[in-house]
Amino acid sequence: MTKVAILYPGDMGVNIAKLLIEKGFDVYSDLDERSESTRKKAFAIGVQQLSINEIVSEVDFVVSLVPPSAVKDVAQAYIDACDGQNRIAMFVDMNAKSTDMVKELSTMFKAVDVPFINACVIGRAAFLRDEGVVYYSGEQVVEWENLINNILEIKYLGDQVTAATAFKMCFAGFNKTITAVFFEIATAANHFGITDELFEEINRKMSGTMGDISKIVGNYPKHINRRKQEMSELNNMLVSENIYTKMASAAALTFEEIADKQYFRSLKEEGSFSLMTILKKLS
Amino acid sequence: MTKVAILYPGDMGVNIAKLLIEKGFDVYSDLDERSESTRKKAFAIGVQQLSINEIVSEVDFVVSLVPPSAVKDVAQAYIDACDGQNRIAMFVDMNAKSTDMVKELSTMFKAVDVPFINACVIGRAAFLRDEGVVYYSGEQVVEWENLINNILEIKYLGDQVTAATAFKMCFAGFNKTITAVFFEIATAANHFGITDELFEEINRKMSGTMGDISKIVGNYPKHINRRKQEMSELNNMLVSENIYTKMASAAALTFEEIADKQYFRSLKEEGSFSLMTILKKLS
Repeated sequence: MTKVAILYPGDMGVNIAKLLIEKGFDVYSDLDERSESTRKKAFAIGVQQLSINEIVSEVDFVVSLVPPSAVKDVAQAYIDACDGQNRIAMFVDMNAKSTDMVKELSTMFKAVDVPFINACVIGRAAFLRDEGVVYYSGEQVVEWENLINNILEIKYLGDQVTAATAFKMCFAGFNKTITAVFFEIATAANHFGITDELFEEINRKMSGTMGDISKIVGNYPKHINRRKQEMSELNNMLVSENIYTKMASAAALTFEEIADKQYFRSLKEEGSFSLMTILKKLS
Repeated sequence: MTKVAILYPGDMGVNIAKLLIEKGFDVYSDLDERSESTRKKAFAIGVQQLSINEIVSEVDFVVSLVPPSAVKDVAQAYIDACDGQNRIAMFVDMNAKSTDMVKELSTMFKAVDVPFINACVIGRAAFLRDEGVVYYSGEQVVEWENLINNILEIKYLGDQVTAATAFKMCFAGFNKTITAVFFEIATAANHFGITDELFEEINRKMSGTMGDISKIVGNYPKHINRRKQEMSELNNMLVSENIYTKMASAAALTFEEIADKQYFRSLKEEGSFSLMTILKKLS
Protein backbone atom coordinates (compact mmCIF):
# COMPACT_ATOMS: atom_id res chain seq x y z
CA MET A 1 0.00 0.00 0.00
CA THR A 2 1.20 3.51 -0.84
CA LYS A 3 3.12 5.23 1.99
CA VAL A 4 3.01 8.96 2.48
CA ALA A 5 5.10 11.42 4.50
CA ILE A 6 3.87 14.89 5.38
CA LEU A 7 6.36 17.68 6.05
CA TYR A 8 4.82 18.99 8.28
CA PRO A 9 1.45 18.23 9.85
CA GLY A 10 0.12 21.76 10.53
CA ASP A 11 -3.55 22.66 10.00
CA MET A 12 -3.80 21.39 6.45
CA GLY A 13 -1.26 18.59 6.86
CA VAL A 14 -3.07 17.09 9.85
CA ASN A 15 -6.36 17.08 7.99
CA ILE A 16 -4.87 15.37 4.95
CA ALA A 17 -3.09 12.84 7.20
CA LYS A 18 -6.36 12.11 9.01
CA LEU A 19 -8.20 11.33 5.76
CA LEU A 20 -5.37 9.06 4.54
CA ILE A 21 -5.10 7.20 7.86
CA GLU A 22 -8.88 6.65 7.92
CA LYS A 23 -8.51 4.91 4.55
CA GLY A 24 -5.80 2.65 5.96
CA PHE A 25 -2.69 4.36 4.63
CA ASP A 26 0.49 4.67 6.70
CA VAL A 27 1.39 8.33 7.14
CA TYR A 28 4.79 9.45 8.42
CA SER A 29 6.57 12.60 9.40
CA ASP A 30 9.85 13.65 10.95
CA LEU A 31 8.53 15.29 14.09
CA ASP A 32 11.73 15.42 16.15
CA GLU A 33 12.22 19.14 15.78
CA ARG A 34 8.55 20.11 15.69
CA SER A 35 6.73 21.87 18.53
CA GLU A 36 5.21 19.81 21.33
CA SER A 37 1.72 20.75 20.15
CA THR A 38 2.40 19.67 16.54
CA ARG A 39 3.89 16.36 17.72
CA LYS A 40 0.95 15.69 20.01
CA LYS A 41 -1.69 16.38 17.38
CA ALA A 42 0.13 14.32 14.77
CA PHE A 43 0.67 11.29 17.01
CA ALA A 44 -2.91 11.51 18.26
CA ILE A 45 -4.30 10.88 14.78
CA GLY A 46 -1.79 8.11 14.07
CA VAL A 47 1.08 9.76 12.20
CA GLN A 48 4.27 7.69 12.65
CA GLN A 49 7.79 8.96 13.24
CA LEU A 50 10.51 8.48 10.59
CA SER A 51 13.71 10.44 10.14
CA ILE A 52 14.04 12.46 6.95
CA ASN A 53 16.55 9.90 5.62
CA GLU A 54 14.16 7.04 6.30
CA ILE A 55 11.36 9.00 4.65
CA VAL A 56 13.35 9.39 1.41
CA SER A 57 13.85 5.66 1.01
CA GLU A 58 10.78 4.15 2.66
CA VAL A 59 7.74 6.14 1.51
CA ASP A 60 6.26 6.77 -1.95
CA PHE A 61 5.17 10.43 -1.73
CA VAL A 62 6.53 13.20 0.44
CA VAL A 63 4.06 16.07 0.72
CA SER A 64 5.41 19.50 1.66
CA LEU A 65 2.90 21.68 3.52
CA VAL A 66 4.67 24.55 5.27
CA PRO A 67 4.42 28.35 5.57
CA PRO A 68 5.53 30.23 2.42
CA SER A 69 8.83 31.27 4.03
CA ALA A 70 9.86 27.63 4.57
CA VAL A 71 8.96 26.24 1.12
CA LYS A 72 12.44 26.38 -0.35
CA ASP A 73 14.24 25.23 2.82
CA VAL A 74 12.10 22.11 3.14
CA ALA A 75 12.65 21.28 -0.54
CA GLN A 76 16.41 21.80 -0.17
CA ALA A 77 16.55 19.67 3.00
CA TYR A 78 14.72 16.92 1.14
CA ILE A 79 17.11 17.11 -1.82
CA ASP A 80 20.07 16.93 0.59
CA ALA A 81 18.59 13.85 2.25
CA CYS A 82 18.18 12.17 -1.17
CA ASP A 83 21.94 12.32 -1.75
CA GLY A 84 23.39 8.81 -2.09
CA GLN A 85 20.03 7.00 -1.69
CA ASN A 86 19.01 4.35 -4.25
CA ARG A 87 15.29 4.60 -3.88
CA ILE A 88 13.76 8.04 -3.67
CA ALA A 89 10.19 9.12 -2.84
CA MET A 90 8.45 11.61 -5.11
CA PHE A 91 8.32 15.13 -3.66
CA VAL A 92 4.95 16.89 -3.85
CA ASP A 93 4.93 20.58 -3.04
CA MET A 94 1.38 21.56 -2.04
CA ASN A 95 2.27 24.98 -0.67
CA ALA A 96 1.02 28.44 -1.52
CA LYS A 97 3.91 30.06 -3.40
CA SER A 98 4.79 32.22 -6.37
CA THR A 99 5.11 30.83 -9.89
CA ASP A 100 8.73 32.01 -9.80
CA MET A 101 9.26 29.78 -6.78
CA VAL A 102 7.68 26.87 -8.67
CA LYS A 103 10.13 27.35 -11.51
CA GLU A 104 12.99 27.49 -9.03
CA LEU A 105 11.86 24.31 -7.26
CA SER A 106 11.37 22.55 -10.58
CA THR A 107 14.93 23.44 -11.62
CA MET A 108 16.37 22.37 -8.24
CA PHE A 109 14.71 18.95 -8.42
CA LYS A 110 15.56 18.39 -12.09
CA ALA A 111 19.22 19.17 -11.41
CA VAL A 112 19.49 16.24 -8.99
CA ASP A 113 16.97 14.02 -10.79
CA VAL A 114 14.56 13.84 -7.85
CA PRO A 115 10.93 13.45 -8.99
CA PHE A 116 8.80 16.52 -8.25
CA ILE A 117 5.08 17.36 -8.47
CA ASN A 118 3.57 20.81 -8.09
CA ALA A 119 0.14 20.66 -6.46
CA CYS A 120 -2.28 22.75 -4.46
CA VAL A 121 -5.31 22.15 -2.34
CA ILE A 122 -8.47 24.27 -2.48
CA GLY A 123 -10.81 24.30 0.52
CA ARG A 124 -10.55 25.20 4.17
CA ALA A 125 -8.45 22.82 6.27
CA ALA A 126 -11.24 22.29 8.80
CA PHE A 127 -13.77 21.40 6.08
CA LEU A 128 -11.41 19.44 3.85
CA ARG A 129 -13.51 16.28 3.66
CA ASP A 130 -16.48 18.20 2.23
CA GLU A 131 -14.90 20.89 0.12
CA GLY A 132 -11.28 19.89 -0.54
CA VAL A 133 -10.05 19.47 -4.11
CA VAL A 134 -6.43 18.82 -5.09
CA TYR A 135 -5.03 20.21 -8.34
CA TYR A 136 -1.63 19.40 -9.79
CA SER A 137 0.36 20.10 -12.92
CA GLY A 138 3.62 19.21 -14.63
CA GLU A 139 4.28 15.56 -15.40
CA GLN A 140 1.15 13.41 -15.05
CA VAL A 141 1.61 10.78 -12.31
CA VAL A 142 -1.13 8.19 -12.17
CA GLU A 143 -0.02 6.72 -8.79
CA TRP A 144 -0.36 10.17 -7.23
CA GLU A 145 -3.84 10.65 -8.69
CA ASN A 146 -4.86 7.20 -7.47
CA LEU A 147 -3.58 7.95 -3.98
CA ILE A 148 -5.43 11.26 -3.61
CA ASN A 149 -8.56 9.83 -5.24
CA ASN A 150 -8.98 7.72 -2.12
CA ILE A 151 -9.64 10.78 -0.02
CA LEU A 152 -10.38 13.82 -2.22
CA GLU A 153 -11.19 14.81 -5.76
CA ILE A 154 -8.01 15.41 -7.77
CA LYS A 155 -7.65 17.19 -11.10
CA TYR A 156 -4.71 17.37 -13.46
CA LEU A 157 -4.09 20.83 -14.96
CA GLY A 158 -1.71 19.90 -17.77
CA ASP A 159 2.02 19.85 -18.22
CA GLN A 160 2.90 23.48 -17.37
CA VAL A 161 4.45 22.98 -13.93
CA THR A 162 3.31 26.45 -12.78
CA ALA A 163 -0.38 25.84 -13.60
CA ALA A 164 -1.39 24.43 -10.19
CA THR A 165 0.13 27.42 -8.41
CA ALA A 166 -1.48 29.89 -10.81
CA PHE A 167 -4.75 28.10 -10.15
CA LYS A 168 -4.41 28.55 -6.40
CA MET A 169 -3.36 32.20 -6.74
CA CYS A 170 -6.21 33.05 -9.14
CA PHE A 171 -8.78 31.23 -7.07
CA ALA A 172 -7.66 32.85 -3.83
CA GLY A 173 -7.31 36.26 -5.45
CA PHE A 174 -10.71 36.20 -7.10
CA ASN A 175 -12.97 36.60 -4.08
CA LYS A 176 -10.51 38.95 -2.38
CA THR A 177 -10.54 41.30 -5.36
CA ILE A 178 -14.34 41.22 -5.35
CA THR A 179 -14.27 42.02 -1.64
CA ALA A 180 -12.09 45.04 -2.46
CA VAL A 181 -14.84 46.21 -4.86
CA PHE A 182 -17.36 46.02 -2.00
CA PHE A 183 -14.98 48.00 0.20
CA GLU A 184 -14.45 50.80 -2.32
CA ILE A 185 -18.15 51.15 -3.12
CA ALA A 186 -18.98 51.09 0.59
CA THR A 187 -16.41 53.83 1.26
CA ALA A 188 -18.20 55.99 -1.31
CA ALA A 189 -21.65 55.05 0.04
CA ASN A 190 -20.59 55.97 3.58
CA HIS A 191 -19.32 59.30 2.30
CA PHE A 192 -22.73 60.08 0.76
CA GLY A 193 -24.75 58.59 3.63
CA ILE A 194 -26.49 56.03 1.38
CA THR A 195 -24.97 52.76 2.62
CA ASP A 196 -28.12 50.99 3.84
CA GLU A 197 -30.16 51.94 0.80
CA LEU A 198 -27.39 51.11 -1.68
CA PHE A 199 -26.63 47.65 -0.34
CA GLU A 200 -30.32 46.91 0.05
CA GLU A 201 -30.71 47.66 -3.67
CA ILE A 202 -27.56 45.67 -4.52
CA ASN A 203 -28.89 42.78 -2.47
CA ARG A 204 -32.15 42.96 -4.38
CA LYS A 205 -30.44 42.81 -7.77
CA MET A 206 -27.33 40.74 -6.87
CA SER A 207 -28.23 38.66 -3.83
CA GLY A 208 -25.96 35.80 -4.90
CA THR A 209 -22.89 38.00 -4.82
CA MET A 210 -23.86 39.54 -1.48
CA GLY A 211 -24.38 36.03 -0.06
CA ASP A 212 -21.02 34.75 -1.28
CA ILE A 213 -19.09 37.72 0.08
CA SER A 214 -21.01 37.64 3.38
CA LYS A 215 -19.64 34.13 3.93
CA ILE A 216 -15.97 35.09 3.53
CA VAL A 217 -15.69 38.67 4.75
CA GLY A 218 -16.09 38.05 8.49
CA ASN A 219 -12.39 37.77 9.31
CA TYR A 220 -11.16 40.60 7.08
CA PRO A 221 -10.83 43.07 9.98
CA LYS A 222 -8.37 40.72 11.67
CA HIS A 223 -6.49 39.81 8.50
CA ILE A 224 -6.55 42.99 6.43
CA ASN A 225 -2.73 43.16 6.26
CA ARG A 226 -2.51 39.55 5.15
CA ARG A 227 -5.13 40.23 2.47
CA LYS A 228 -3.04 43.12 1.22
CA GLN A 229 -0.01 40.83 1.10
CA GLU A 230 -1.91 38.13 -0.80
CA MET A 231 -3.13 40.61 -3.39
CA SER A 232 0.41 41.94 -3.84
CA GLU A 233 1.59 38.39 -4.46
CA LEU A 234 -1.11 37.83 -7.07
CA ASN A 235 -0.12 41.10 -8.71
CA ASN A 236 3.55 40.06 -8.68
CA MET A 237 2.71 36.76 -10.34
CA LEU A 238 0.66 38.43 -13.09
CA VAL A 239 3.35 41.06 -13.71
CA SER A 240 6.07 38.41 -13.78
CA GLU A 241 4.06 36.47 -16.41
CA ASN A 242 3.42 39.63 -18.46
CA ILE A 243 -0.33 39.38 -17.95
CA TYR A 244 -2.15 42.73 -18.15
CA THR A 245 -3.21 43.49 -14.58
CA LYS A 246 -4.83 46.45 -12.85
CA MET A 247 -7.37 44.94 -10.45
CA ALA A 248 -4.99 42.92 -8.26
CA SER A 249 -2.73 45.84 -7.35
CA ALA A 250 -5.79 48.09 -6.92
CA ALA A 251 -7.15 45.58 -4.41
CA ALA A 252 -3.80 45.46 -2.59
CA LEU A 253 -3.81 49.27 -2.34
CA THR A 254 -7.44 49.28 -1.20
CA PHE A 255 -6.62 46.88 1.65
CA GLU A 256 -3.47 48.84 2.46
CA GLU A 257 -5.42 52.10 2.75
CA ILE A 258 -7.97 50.41 5.03
CA ALA A 259 -5.15 49.04 7.20
CA ASP A 260 -3.36 52.41 7.30
CA LYS A 261 -6.51 54.32 8.21
CA GLN A 262 -7.35 51.66 10.83
CA TYR A 263 -11.01 51.66 9.81
CA PHE A 264 -11.43 48.26 11.45
CA ARG A 265 -9.72 49.14 14.73
CA SER A 266 -12.91 48.68 16.75
CA LEU A 267 -13.46 45.21 15.20
CA LYS A 268 -9.98 43.75 15.54
CA GLU A 269 -10.33 42.09 18.91
CA GLU A 270 -13.28 39.85 18.29
CA GLY A 271 -13.96 37.13 15.75
CA SER A 272 -16.26 37.31 12.77
CA PHE A 273 -18.43 40.22 11.65
CA SER A 274 -21.36 40.66 9.31
CA LEU A 275 -20.86 42.20 5.89
CA MET A 276 -22.84 45.34 6.73
CA THR A 277 -21.01 45.85 10.03
CA ILE A 278 -17.73 45.73 8.17
CA LEU A 279 -18.83 47.93 5.26
CA LYS A 280 -20.11 50.64 7.59
CA LYS A 281 -16.69 50.99 9.22
CA LEU A 282 -15.16 52.20 5.96
CA SER A 283 -15.02 55.93 6.64
CA MET B 1 -54.89 65.34 -10.12
CA THR B 2 -51.12 65.82 -10.40
CA LYS B 3 -49.92 66.64 -13.92
CA VAL B 4 -46.53 65.55 -15.20
CA ALA B 5 -44.40 66.53 -18.17
CA ILE B 6 -41.56 64.37 -19.44
CA LEU B 7 -38.66 65.94 -21.34
CA TYR B 8 -38.33 63.75 -23.34
CA PRO B 9 -40.04 60.39 -23.77
CA GLY B 10 -37.13 58.15 -24.85
CA ASP B 11 -36.77 54.55 -23.61
CA MET B 12 -37.05 55.34 -19.92
CA GLY B 13 -39.38 58.33 -20.32
CA VAL B 14 -41.92 56.36 -22.35
CA ASN B 15 -42.02 53.61 -19.76
CA ILE B 16 -42.54 56.06 -16.90
CA ALA B 17 -45.22 57.88 -18.92
CA LYS B 18 -46.99 54.59 -19.61
CA LEU B 19 -47.17 53.68 -15.93
CA LEU B 20 -48.48 57.14 -15.00
CA ILE B 21 -51.09 57.18 -17.77
CA GLU B 22 -52.29 53.70 -16.74
CA LYS B 23 -52.97 55.16 -13.29
CA GLY B 24 -55.03 57.99 -14.81
CA PHE B 25 -52.48 60.80 -14.74
CA ASP B 26 -52.18 63.31 -17.55
CA VAL B 27 -48.69 63.22 -19.02
CA TYR B 28 -47.37 65.93 -21.33
CA SER B 29 -44.34 66.65 -23.43
CA ASP B 30 -43.18 69.22 -25.95
CA LEU B 31 -42.73 66.95 -28.93
CA ASP B 32 -42.61 69.53 -31.72
CA GLU B 33 -38.91 69.21 -32.33
CA ARG B 34 -38.60 65.51 -31.51
CA SER B 35 -38.04 62.80 -34.12
CA GLU B 36 -41.01 61.25 -35.88
CA SER B 37 -40.41 57.96 -34.09
CA THR B 38 -40.34 59.59 -30.63
CA ARG B 39 -43.53 61.56 -31.40
CA LYS B 40 -45.32 58.45 -32.67
CA LYS B 41 -44.40 56.33 -29.64
CA ALA B 42 -45.33 59.07 -27.21
CA PHE B 43 -48.72 59.86 -28.77
CA ALA B 44 -49.45 56.11 -29.07
CA ILE B 45 -49.35 55.67 -25.29
CA GLY B 46 -51.34 58.85 -24.66
CA VAL B 47 -48.75 61.56 -24.02
CA GLN B 48 -50.28 65.00 -24.80
CA GLN B 49 -48.62 67.92 -26.54
CA LEU B 50 -47.86 71.14 -24.64
CA SER B 51 -45.31 73.81 -25.49
CA ILE B 52 -42.48 74.30 -23.00
CA ASN B 53 -44.09 77.57 -21.82
CA GLU B 54 -47.42 75.85 -21.23
CA ILE B 55 -45.61 73.04 -19.39
CA VAL B 56 -44.01 75.48 -16.93
CA SER B 57 -47.36 76.95 -15.87
CA GLU B 58 -49.78 74.05 -16.29
CA VAL B 59 -48.10 70.89 -14.88
CA ASP B 60 -46.83 70.07 -11.38
CA PHE B 61 -43.63 68.12 -12.10
CA VAL B 62 -41.34 68.30 -15.09
CA VAL B 63 -39.14 65.22 -15.38
CA SER B 64 -35.91 65.49 -17.36
CA LEU B 65 -34.81 62.21 -18.96
CA VAL B 66 -32.24 62.85 -21.68
CA PRO B 67 -28.79 61.65 -22.75
CA PRO B 68 -25.94 62.89 -20.48
CA SER B 69 -24.80 65.45 -23.08
CA ALA B 70 -28.22 67.20 -23.03
CA VAL B 71 -28.75 67.38 -19.26
CA LYS B 72 -27.60 70.95 -18.80
CA ASP B 73 -29.22 72.29 -21.99
CA VAL B 74 -32.65 70.94 -21.06
CA ALA B 75 -32.34 72.41 -17.56
CA GLN B 76 -31.29 75.78 -18.98
CA ALA B 77 -34.14 75.77 -21.51
CA TYR B 78 -36.56 75.08 -18.70
CA ILE B 79 -35.15 77.90 -16.57
CA ASP B 80 -35.44 80.25 -19.56
CA ALA B 81 -39.08 79.24 -20.04
CA CYS B 82 -39.81 79.97 -16.37
CA ASP B 83 -38.86 83.62 -16.80
CA GLY B 84 -41.83 85.88 -16.11
CA GLN B 85 -44.24 83.07 -15.21
CA ASN B 86 -46.25 83.24 -11.98
CA ARG B 87 -46.78 79.56 -11.41
CA ILE B 88 -43.82 77.24 -11.96
CA ALA B 89 -43.68 73.44 -12.04
CA MET B 90 -40.99 71.63 -10.04
CA PHE B 91 -38.09 70.39 -12.16
CA VAL B 92 -36.94 66.80 -11.49
CA ASP B 93 -33.68 65.74 -13.06
CA MET B 94 -33.66 61.93 -13.29
CA ASN B 95 -30.65 61.69 -15.58
CA ALA B 96 -27.37 59.85 -15.21
CA LYS B 97 -24.81 62.59 -14.57
CA SER B 98 -21.80 63.51 -12.46
CA THR B 99 -22.12 64.87 -8.93
CA ASP B 100 -20.36 68.01 -10.21
CA MET B 101 -23.20 68.44 -12.70
CA VAL B 102 -25.74 68.02 -9.87
CA LYS B 103 -24.07 70.83 -7.93
CA GLU B 104 -24.10 73.00 -11.04
CA LEU B 105 -27.78 72.31 -11.70
CA SER B 106 -28.63 72.95 -8.06
CA THR B 107 -26.87 76.32 -8.21
CA MET B 108 -28.55 77.25 -11.51
CA PHE B 109 -32.04 76.52 -10.16
CA LYS B 110 -31.41 78.21 -6.80
CA ALA B 111 -30.21 81.38 -8.55
CA VAL B 112 -33.59 81.81 -10.24
CA ASP B 113 -35.66 80.32 -7.41
CA VAL B 114 -37.05 77.47 -9.51
CA PRO B 115 -37.76 74.34 -7.42
CA PHE B 116 -35.42 71.45 -8.26
CA ILE B 117 -35.24 67.77 -7.28
CA ASN B 118 -32.34 65.43 -8.01
CA ALA B 119 -33.54 61.88 -8.62
CA CYS B 120 -32.52 58.66 -10.35
CA VAL B 121 -34.22 55.50 -11.42
CA ILE B 122 -32.73 52.03 -10.93
CA GLY B 123 -33.93 49.19 -13.15
CA ARG B 124 -34.02 48.48 -16.86
CA ALA B 125 -36.47 50.61 -18.85
CA ALA B 126 -38.15 47.58 -20.40
CA PHE B 127 -38.70 45.94 -16.98
CA LEU B 128 -39.54 49.10 -15.07
CA ARG B 129 -42.86 47.91 -13.67
CA ASP B 130 -41.19 44.91 -11.97
CA GLU B 131 -37.77 46.19 -10.99
CA GLY B 132 -37.88 49.99 -11.08
CA VAL B 133 -37.11 52.00 -7.94
CA VAL B 134 -36.82 55.80 -7.83
CA TYR B 135 -34.37 57.45 -5.43
CA TYR B 136 -34.14 61.17 -4.78
CA SER B 137 -32.29 63.54 -2.49
CA GLY B 138 -32.11 67.22 -1.54
CA GLU B 139 -35.22 68.84 -0.18
CA GLN B 140 -37.91 66.32 0.79
CA VAL B 141 -41.06 66.82 -1.31
CA VAL B 142 -44.05 64.79 -0.18
CA GLU B 143 -46.14 65.51 -3.31
CA TRP B 144 -43.37 64.05 -5.47
CA GLU B 145 -43.14 60.94 -3.29
CA ASN B 146 -46.92 60.53 -3.42
CA LEU B 147 -46.93 60.86 -7.19
CA ILE B 148 -44.22 58.23 -7.80
CA ASN B 149 -45.68 55.94 -5.15
CA ASN B 150 -48.61 55.41 -7.51
CA ILE B 151 -46.38 53.62 -10.00
CA LEU B 152 -43.04 52.65 -8.41
CA GLU B 153 -41.28 52.36 -5.09
CA ILE B 154 -39.60 55.65 -4.14
CA LYS B 155 -36.94 56.24 -1.49
CA TYR B 156 -35.64 59.49 -0.07
CA LEU B 157 -31.85 59.56 0.42
CA GLY B 158 -31.56 62.62 2.64
CA ASP B 159 -30.82 66.27 2.11
CA GLN B 160 -27.46 66.06 0.29
CA VAL B 161 -28.57 66.95 -3.24
CA THR B 162 -25.79 64.80 -4.77
CA ALA B 163 -26.81 61.62 -2.93
CA ALA B 164 -29.25 60.31 -5.55
CA THR B 165 -26.64 60.66 -8.28
CA ALA B 166 -23.94 59.05 -6.16
CA PHE B 167 -26.38 56.22 -5.52
CA LYS B 168 -26.91 55.66 -9.25
CA MET B 169 -23.17 55.86 -9.98
CA CYS B 170 -22.22 53.47 -7.17
CA PHE B 171 -24.96 51.03 -8.04
CA ALA B 172 -24.09 51.02 -11.74
CA GLY B 173 -20.35 50.88 -11.04
CA PHE B 174 -20.58 48.02 -8.58
CA ASN B 175 -21.40 45.15 -10.90
CA LYS B 176 -19.19 46.57 -13.65
CA THR B 177 -16.17 46.61 -11.36
CA ILE B 178 -16.92 43.03 -10.33
CA THR B 179 -17.13 42.11 -14.01
CA ALA B 180 -13.66 43.63 -14.46
CA VAL B 181 -12.41 41.26 -11.73
CA PHE B 182 -13.80 38.31 -13.71
CA PHE B 183 -12.07 39.63 -16.84
CA GLU B 184 -8.67 40.02 -15.20
CA ILE B 185 -8.76 36.59 -13.53
CA ALA B 186 -9.94 35.02 -16.80
CA THR B 187 -7.07 36.67 -18.68
CA ALA B 188 -4.66 35.01 -16.25
CA ALA B 189 -6.51 31.69 -16.40
CA ASN B 190 -6.38 31.70 -20.21
CA HIS B 191 -2.65 32.39 -20.06
CA PHE B 192 -2.12 29.33 -17.86
CA GLY B 193 -4.65 27.14 -19.71
CA ILE B 194 -6.78 26.57 -16.60
CA THR B 195 -9.95 28.51 -17.45
CA ASP B 196 -12.50 25.69 -17.39
CA GLU B 197 -11.16 24.18 -14.20
CA LEU B 198 -10.81 27.53 -12.43
CA PHE B 199 -14.31 28.78 -13.15
CA GLU B 200 -15.76 25.37 -12.38
CA GLU B 201 -14.15 25.63 -8.95
CA ILE B 202 -15.25 29.27 -8.55
CA ASN B 203 -18.76 28.24 -9.53
CA ARG B 204 -18.66 25.52 -6.89
CA LYS B 205 -17.62 27.93 -4.12
CA MET B 206 -19.27 31.16 -5.36
CA SER B 207 -22.20 30.13 -7.53
CA GLY B 208 -24.23 33.19 -6.52
CA THR B 209 -21.61 35.56 -7.88
CA MET B 210 -21.22 33.57 -11.10
CA GLY B 211 -25.01 33.59 -11.53
CA ASP B 212 -25.32 37.35 -11.02
CA ILE B 213 -22.52 38.19 -13.45
CA SER B 214 -23.80 35.67 -16.02
CA LYS B 215 -27.03 37.68 -16.16
CA ILE B 216 -25.38 41.01 -16.96
CA VAL B 217 -22.25 40.16 -18.94
CA GLY B 218 -23.89 39.12 -22.22
CA ASN B 219 -23.73 42.53 -23.91
CA TYR B 220 -20.24 43.51 -22.75
CA PRO B 221 -18.62 42.61 -26.09
CA LYS B 222 -20.85 45.14 -27.83
CA HIS B 223 -20.55 47.83 -25.14
CA ILE B 224 -16.99 47.47 -23.88
CA ASN B 225 -16.11 51.09 -24.75
CA ARG B 226 -19.20 52.39 -23.00
CA ARG B 227 -18.30 50.30 -19.93
CA LYS B 228 -14.86 51.88 -19.92
CA GLN B 229 -16.47 55.32 -20.11
CA GLU B 230 -18.88 54.57 -17.25
CA MET B 231 -16.05 53.37 -15.02
CA SER B 232 -14.04 56.51 -15.83
CA GLU B 233 -17.03 58.61 -14.78
CA LEU B 234 -17.35 56.74 -11.50
CA ASN B 235 -13.64 57.24 -10.92
CA ASN B 236 -13.98 60.97 -11.68
CA MET B 237 -16.81 61.31 -9.19
CA LEU B 238 -14.86 59.54 -6.44
CA VAL B 239 -11.74 61.60 -7.13
CA SER B 240 -13.76 64.82 -7.21
CA GLU B 241 -15.25 63.93 -3.80
CA ASN B 242 -11.82 63.03 -2.36
CA ILE B 243 -12.85 59.42 -1.81
CA TYR B 244 -9.95 56.96 -1.87
CA THR B 245 -10.38 55.00 -5.09
CA LYS B 246 -8.31 52.42 -6.92
CA MET B 247 -10.81 49.84 -8.19
CA ALA B 248 -12.89 52.10 -10.45
CA SER B 249 -9.97 53.35 -12.52
CA ALA B 250 -8.48 49.84 -12.61
CA ALA B 251 -11.78 48.60 -14.06
CA ALA B 252 -11.78 51.42 -16.64
CA LEU B 253 -8.23 50.46 -17.67
CA THR B 254 -9.16 46.78 -17.80
CA PHE B 255 -12.05 47.50 -20.18
CA GLU B 256 -9.86 49.85 -22.21
CA GLU B 257 -7.19 47.17 -22.64
CA ILE B 258 -9.84 44.67 -23.74
CA ALA B 259 -11.22 47.19 -26.25
CA ASP B 260 -7.74 48.07 -27.53
CA LYS B 261 -6.73 44.44 -27.96
CA GLN B 262 -10.09 43.70 -29.63
CA TYR B 263 -10.45 40.45 -27.71
CA PHE B 264 -14.18 40.49 -28.41
CA ARG B 265 -13.91 41.21 -32.15
CA SER B 266 -15.44 37.84 -33.08
CA LEU B 267 -18.42 38.50 -30.76
CA LYS B 268 -19.30 42.06 -31.69
CA GLU B 269 -21.83 41.40 -34.41
CA GLU B 270 -24.32 39.28 -32.54
CA GLY B 271 -26.33 39.82 -29.38
CA SER B 272 -25.76 38.23 -26.02
CA PHE B 273 -23.07 35.73 -25.04
CA SER B 274 -22.55 33.35 -22.15
CA LEU B 275 -20.10 34.20 -19.39
CA MET B 276 -17.69 31.40 -20.31
CA THR B 277 -17.77 32.30 -24.02
CA ILE B 278 -16.81 35.85 -23.11
CA LEU B 279 -14.15 34.90 -20.56
CA LYS B 280 -12.41 32.53 -22.97
CA LYS B 281 -11.90 35.35 -25.49
CA LEU B 282 -9.63 37.21 -23.09
CA SER B 283 -6.24 36.32 -24.54
